[in-house]
Amino acid sequence: MDISAIQQQLRAFSAERDWDQFHNPKNLAMALSVEAAELVELYQWLTPEQAEAASHDPAFATRLGEELADILLYLLRLADRTGIDLPAAVARKQQLNAQKYPADAVQGQAKSALNSGQHHSST
Amino acid sequence: MDISAIQQQLRAFSAERDWDQFHNPKNLAMALSVEAAELVELYQWLTPEQAEAASHDPAFATRLGEELADILLYLLRLADRTGIDLPAAVARKQQLNAQKYPADAVQGQAKSALNSGQHHSST
Amino acid sequence: MDISAIQQQLRAFSAERDWDQFHNPKNLAMALSVEAAELVELYQWLTPEQAEAASHDPAFATRLGEELADILLYLLRLADRTGIDLPAAVARKQQLNAQKYPADAVQGQAKSALNSGQHHSST
Amino acid sequence: MDISAIQQQLRAFSAERDWDQFHNPKNLAMALSVEAAELVELYQWLTPEQAEAASHDPAFATRLGEELADILLYLLRLADRTGIDLPAAVARKQQLNAQKYPADAVQGQAKSALNSGQHHSST
Repeated sequence: MDISAIQQQLRAFSAERDWDQFHNPKNLAMALSVEAAELVELYQWLTPEQAEAASHDPAFATRLGEELADILLYLLRLADRTGIDLPAAVARKQQLNAQKYPADAVQGQAKSALNSGQHHSST
Repeated sequence: MDISAIQQQLRAFSAERDWDQFHNPKNLAMALSVEAAELVELYQWLTPEQAEAASHDPAFATRLGEELADILLYLLRLADRTGIDLPAAVARKQQLNAQKYPADAVQGQAKSALNSGQHHSST
Repeated sequence: MDISAIQQQLRAFSAERDWDQFHNPKNLAMALSVEAAELVELYQWLTPEQAEAASHDPAFATRLGEELADILLYLLRLADRTGIDLPAAVARKQQLNAQKYPADAVQGQAKSALNSGQHHSST
Repeated sequence: MDISAIQQQLRAFSAERDWDQFHNPKNLAMALSVEAAELVELYQWLTPEQAEAASHDPAFATRLGEELADILLYLLRLADRTGIDLPAAVARKQQLNAQKYPADAVQGQAKSALNSGQHHSST
């Protein structure tokens, strides 16, 4: 995926609509979180098994793709507006996660309020 | 950014930690939304002007990059677990947005409860 | 619960700390959503069964109570700042829900992307 | 506001619709966060000044009241399902906040990534 190309398209899209006035970092962060909630909404009443199976439903998969795209577009836009180098930030975070969660120390453990202060199932 | 390569790394990272049991679509959607809230938290008490200026603060930019990376990593992981082709979904959504928000019809207008049912400042 | 009394206490709490400058409606809405995500975080890696059982764990229940209180406090503060009569708004919404979801029409059905456009499992 | 009475009404409302199967704590936490995002959506493109003024617009105030009511109803439902005594949890949290944020130590300061690790503008 060509991040810079998409960011350039989003810049043009916003400029053509005079939307730069709305796309400040604070507002974009809010908008991204609203899109994340629309993703959550897709799954909120489903059992984990139904949620898993839903991916095979074409209508659901289309909706899911739209929500993921909405989140990603705001993410790219926000990174562009704030000068964050996303690929570098991702590579750095992956390194931090590898240090923070040594495989042998966190086997099968997720941080939760039941075993708080322990380990966090990060990506 | 090589999406497939990162998704492959995330798959290995999760497998090595026996975390696949936690990474079902419902849980990943929740986790993504929690990371989106951590992004919002960075900006919640800042004025729009302070939020804009914060990007130039190295410590803030580092934190911002980490939050954006967390969101993106969960997004890539969820897309991988659900079989969503992210670049295709993004391209499709950009087309839909172009159709939904003709530039001359939505000039300088953001959907809000003040002018509800009108236009939506999408990315 | 005496809503007005708590709102009066929150007003004093904020005034004593010179925090009214931060507590505008936009920021309070953001803060409330961040607290809602901290609630979600408690449950994100738990199975529904573990989530149900967690209420019986004293440490979890304490954390849960704190997150629910945080949300409620921001809700009361925002309602106070915007002049919303919460008890009246709740009573009105309950009436709307009763009309929108007739018991015989929505038996055992939750709106989801799998049966989209149908029924919504509201409170 | 009579919390117990509303919780009793919500119990009956859910039972009549066979919705108890959906209203487990994990799902209710997700639903609450989705409603919180609908609140954020009302404000996302508004300047702080527009957000402040919006309270005086009757249509906006009605929408705002509905979103706040939705959040509060899910909060009451979740507290009921998990056995949390909300008034006690709120009173306890107010005490904790008073200890955590002594007025003279946090005058006019909000926690942010710009002055991280310092003070948090809580309610």
